Amino acid sequence: MEPGPPGSSRPTEPGPCLSSQQGADQAASASLQSAAGAQPGRHSLAVAAVLPAGGCGERMGVPTPKQFCPILERPLISYTLQALERVYWIKDIVVAVTGENMEVMKSIIQKYQHKRISLVEAGVTRHRSIFNGLKALAEDQLNCKLSKPEIVIVHDAVRPFVEEDTLLKVVTAAKKHGCSDYDLEFGTECLQLALKYCCTKAKLVEGSPDLWKVTYKRDLYAVESIIKEKISQEICVVTDIEEDNKYVSHLLEEVLKSELNHVKVTSEALCHAGRDLQQIILDQCYNFVCVNVMTSDFQETQKLLSMLEESNLSILYPVVVVSVHFLDFKLVPPSQKMESLMLIREFAKEVKKRNIWLCGLLISYPQDEQKLQESLRQGAIIIASLIKERNSGLIGQLLIA
Amino acid sequence: MEPGPPGSSRPTEPGPCLSSQQGADQAASASLQSAAGAQPGRHSLAVAAVLPAGGCGERMGVPTPKQFCPILERPLISYTLQALERVYWIKDIVVAVTGENMEVMKSIIQKYQHKRISLVEAGVTRHRSIFNGLKALAEDQLNCKLSKPEIVIVHDAVRPFVEEDTLLKVVTAAKKHGCSDYDLEFGTECLQLALKYCCTKAKLVEGSPDLWKVTYKRDLYAVESIIKEKISQEICVVTDIEEDNKYVSHLLEEVLKSELNHVKVTSEALCHAGRDLQQIILDQCYNFVCVNVMTSDFQETQKLLSMLEESNLSILYPVVVVSVHFLDFKLVPPSQKMESLMLIREFAKEVKKRNIWLCGLLISYPQDEQKLQESLRQGAIIIASLIKERNSGLIGQLLIA
Repeated sequence: MEPGPPGSSRPTEPGPCLSSQQGADQAASASLQSAAGAQPGRHSLAVAAVLPAGGCGERMGVPTPKQFCPILERPLISYTLQALERVYWIKDIVVAVTGENMEVMKSIIQKYQHKRISLVEAGVTRHRSIFNGLKALAEDQLNCKLSKPEIVIVHDAVRPFVEEDTLLKVVTAAKKHGCSDYDLEFGTECLQLALKYCCTKAKLVEGSPDLWKVTYKRDLYAVESIIKEKISQEICVVTDIEEDNKYVSHLLEEVLKSELNHVKVTSEALCHAGRDLQQIILDQCYNFVCVNVMTSDFQETQKLLSMLEESNLSILYPVVVVSVHFLDFKLVPPSQKMESLMLIREFAKEVKKRNIWLCGLLISYPQDEQKLQESLRQGAIIIASLIKERNSGLIGQLLIA
Repeated sequence: MEPGPPGSSRPTEPGPCLSSQQGADQAASASLQSAAGAQPGRHSLAVAAVLPAGGCGERMGVPTPKQFCPILERPLISYTLQALERVYWIKDIVVAVTGENMEVMKSIIQKYQHKRISLVEAGVTRHRSIFNGLKALAEDQLNCKLSKPEIVIVHDAVRPFVEEDTLLKVVTAAKKHGCSDYDLEFGTECLQLALKYCCTKAKLVEGSPDLWKVTYKRDLYAVESIIKEKISQEICVVTDIEEDNKYVSHLLEEVLKSELNHVKVTSEALCHAGRDLQQIILDQCYNFVCVNVMTSDFQETQKLLSMLEESNLSILYPVVVVSVHFLDFKLVPPSQKMESLMLIREFAKEVKKRNIWLCGLLISYPQDEQKLQESLRQGAIIIASLIKERNSGLIGQLLIA
């Protein structure tokens, strides 16, 4: 693969300030945020994207076409749409799907609240589908209020990890080399041959290794693991304002930090205003460890769950909430505590409907400092498992450290 | 890629009967078993393999060289060795590793009981490493008792899923086209160029899509998921001989069958002779659901654990054991039952040392037939999660359905 011209990833003259219309996911990648202030030129170019998504995935070995295969219960194509949607300068996204999948696609757009999407019917080949998308844009069949696009990015529906940087390079190259209908097929023999032997204006733009195409079943596994890793980078430890509680949740926070390398562990109070916690929710943290005081079971967890339910945080990804409780064997018999905590199954069932995955964790609280450290460490390992693996089979379980 | 000549995957004259020396893993793939009777020719050719494994994995983004990255706690290269080792007609396997990794490699060979492996020091490049391996074979530096090999297969240490079929095609092609030192680099530009432009005897042999090379971090994720899937294809439900128990374990077996498509669910009694269960262990089933009768906690599970500990089943893969208990709320208070079952943590800690991953599952047993079905279904979902995800963080937990 040939690298793009120096500086092609950033326009020399930055565009106007960041617009507020950024799509749902702002947190996905630091490189996106650094590029977000950039625009394809001083005067914004009209850019649209066409996604051929009419394939039937015969190499996949699974009955569902690959673009509709679920990753954490959400279809793959929704991740690709999310990636394009958060690039605010792509004004319109046209998806070509077969007639039989039209209704499925409509329901995906509605459920995951995708914006700026239009649908056209796919053709019998990938090229026909692209043609249908371009035609719709050219003829304004979609009744868009936009001017006709000057540049159209053709992007595979099964490349979910495209970054704004790469798209910006493509648009910059298209502007310079005059190739519209730019096909994001990095490193294919096709484009390499065109570059070597033909008099086209084709320009190979360097993509990141994340831009690979989901082709085999193993690629679906990889996508799922990458997404799980992406949304497990931050854990927020939520406490109430009581001092007792602060001490133990502080200890837990410290153990989480030392056990979970590379994971950002923050802590927030569940106070009446709760403004900071609101900010963490807005900043798209998908993992919460809620520490409940010893006397009042679930009170803190219920407050947190209400806040999460009111937000739209769990539309795109399952939010994991671990309700942590402490057990001093000398004060309360374990069986009594465990029985009262079995209520968690009911709460979990309820919030699962909103894509919030609730589990309970009972950590024994011995007076001995060293033993306490050990049980906190055990608790941290379980929390890490629940968050990293995001195993829906464990929703509503009460685990013990 | 160009397909091999017709019939190249099977010799026209089959070799002698299957020898008993087959390596540890016989169960991995049906296609292997179908090819296992074949040999590279009537009179067996001396075939050896060289694995260059001196890389440092700079593209991986992880500190460990990729061939040593753990998959289910076992280094990747051990899976590749296992794949080559079970091909009994590969008489000798030479691995080239850097001096600093020599001891690590020795301990891997010992821990996972690999056979027919010799080590040489890697060179500064991949080609140098291959050369060192070939030289060692030619000069008999390794003091092998074998005749010098006529054909040497060069195989990447980071392609763990190579199948006997493919290796047989390579050897057959090497015999026919005269190319020894055959490099299993399917579809690389290098080999394609050689085919087109040079007067070599190179022959491109079609590999399966599973033969891909672990290059990026996402490939490690994919390997882990593929291996988890491979070893989750069979579940054995273990019961004792009491009639009561047979009824409920039969019900559980039925629910498991209907909930887990494509998974083979067998059942075996834990009788005194236990010959059938021994056979299932020999046939490498890695998942056991042990149903305990209501009155005697853990008795069956302990018997099963002893059998598993005596076998060598868990050397290569973690064996999951789910100890299932039933709870009739009317007879025993749940807290009492749960407290007695907390002993599972101690058992789990003990057998974890032998790579046996034990979890408990308490299934409520209502008299109402429909409610019983529902709690069994819940139990089956949890069992499926534990087996498919193989999450070590949940070892020793008592889950509730």
